Amino acid sequence: MSTEAPNPFPPSTRTVFFVSDGTGITAETFGHAVLSQFEMRFRPVRLPFIDSIDKAHEAARRINDSFAMDGQNPIVFSTLVKPELSLVIRQSKGMHMDLFQTFVAPLEQELGVKSTHTIGRIHNVVDTEEYKNRIEAINFSLAHDDGQSHKNLAEADVILVGVSRSGKTPTSLYLAMQYGLKAANYPLIPDDFERGRLPSALPQFKHKLFGLTISPERLSQIRNERRAGSKYASLENCRFEVNEAEMLMRREGIRWLSSTTKSIEEIATTILQEIKPDRREY
Amino acid sequence: MSTEAPNPFPPSTRTVFFVSDGTGITAETFGHAVLSQFEMRFRPVRLPFIDSIDKAHEAARRINDSFAMDGQNPIVFSTLVKPELSLVIRQSKGMHMDLFQTFVAPLEQELGVKSTHTIGRIHNVVDTEEYKNRIEAINFSLAHDDGQSHKNLAEADVILVGVSRSGKTPTSLYLAMQYGLKAANYPLIPDDFERGRLPSALPQFKHKLFGLTISPERLSQIRNERRAGSKYASLENCRFEVNEAEMLMRREGIRWLSSTTKSIEEIATTILQEIKPDRREY
Repeated sequence: MSTEAPNPFPPSTRTVFFVSDGTGITAETFGHAVLSQFEMRFRPVRLPFIDSIDKAHEAARRINDSFAMDGQNPIVFSTLVKPELSLVIRQSKGMHMDLFQTFVAPLEQELGVKSTHTIGRIHNVVDTEEYKNRIEAINFSLAHDDGQSHKNLAEADVILVGVSRSGKTPTSLYLAMQYGLKAANYPLIPDDFERGRLPSALPQFKHKLFGLTISPERLSQIRNERRAGSKYASLENCRFEVNEAEMLMRREGIRWLSSTTKSIEEIATTILQEIKPDRREY
Repeated sequence: MSTEAPNPFPPSTRTVFFVSDGTGITAETFGHAVLSQFEMRFRPVRLPFIDSIDKAHEAARRINDSFAMDGQNPIVFSTLVKPELSLVIRQSKGMHMDLFQTFVAPLEQELGVKSTHTIGRIHNVVDTEEYKNRIEAINFSLAHDDGQSHKNLAEADVILVGVSRSGKTPTSLYLAMQYGLKAANYPLIPDDFERGRLPSALPQFKHKLFGLTISPERLSQIRNERRAGSKYASLENCRFEVNEAEMLMRREGIRWLSSTTKSIEEIATTILQEIKPDRREY
């Protein structure tokens, strides 16, 4: 690790460290969520794979350097399962949010068992069934993106439908990546509207279908970023397609939501609530 | 919301609730990380979008029902930014890990500003530059999967190379989804080994190249799951390909890592450390 470069951000920017014995993704996800509650700017520094006393001292040195440079406490979010590593970090300058130590002790008491203090368990899971399912789900979702394949649709956990650029592809990939769901997606295109029917591969899987719609204005904006000035992107055409798609979904009794102001995460969570019980266990 | 179904898990299984005013992804990521430290089974129940007093009371009722059914405290991880909603949940039966309230008050003191208590800020970001970049990165990574396109490689943040099934595709998508990086990937195939050179589109982007390798045994196992008994999947052929790919990468001075025992998250984090400074701010 090299010495901290000079801080290029304004003095009101607070430096935030994410220190972890694993990838640091948990610390960063959590820290990002908490810090988004503050109207300030933060400069994130990720310190993953801090899994030895030597690395912990090096991390502590970087935190101290940051304090010296900024003249203010850095915020430190840490997920370190070994108490001795956590202690080294907590002794550095800064405001420490020790995520594991804060919650592990009370959980040990409630559950009546000791925690294993095993480093990197959360993402060190390559040999587990759950991980294999996730990789398989990603491959499935890719192979079934944009109606590319009709094969094995019976295996799909969900099949998203909607007009082109309504958010089907990123949502499918997110469902696969985050939840291990096999998510196919099919575009609804002018041919389908003319026939007034769903693409022929789909009606037999109606219980797995979920629709995405979007406001014509937003759709036109998104399409114009890709094909500026085309008929495809025109507001008139977007109005037509969205209207036809919504009529089709309503007629076929397909559940749907509008992606206009929703992030991938919000869409995925809503779909999960609709199509799937909490069957997972870990 | 319907009444809790009878618990199908053994009595030693503890019910865990993830309660959030947004997607609950932060609560679940964090809860999963902490609980993976315990050698027990957990039954997760997700309660997202709890953003009103009525919904909070309904959630509290479900938590109380779970207590009555299991005869033991459910574990409750919550990320609720409104103190009044958080209070309703904390008054239910269970062991409560109130992630925001625990850390927000000390942060307010350290930062000298009040938190905004704005619900769902973290994933309610559709109009931000960061979110648009992420969606664009996902589209880019998909379009540049498996060497499909040579176009706009200059825009790529990273180009992964490696033999077929070494983990390039899921890693590329994860880098795009999680970090908003434009991640292309190119397979190294027998043609390249014969010529003893990288695919012709790549040498000019050598500073962006990152290699994935894998043990021949693991590769053969993965390939056999797709094409059992093929030459492609045979251990002998996997040994040949991996050896040639590693020689090629060494000769070309490409940084690489072995994906054999690493999860997508671990691979992505390592690549991020190698190719990219912490330039993001939020």
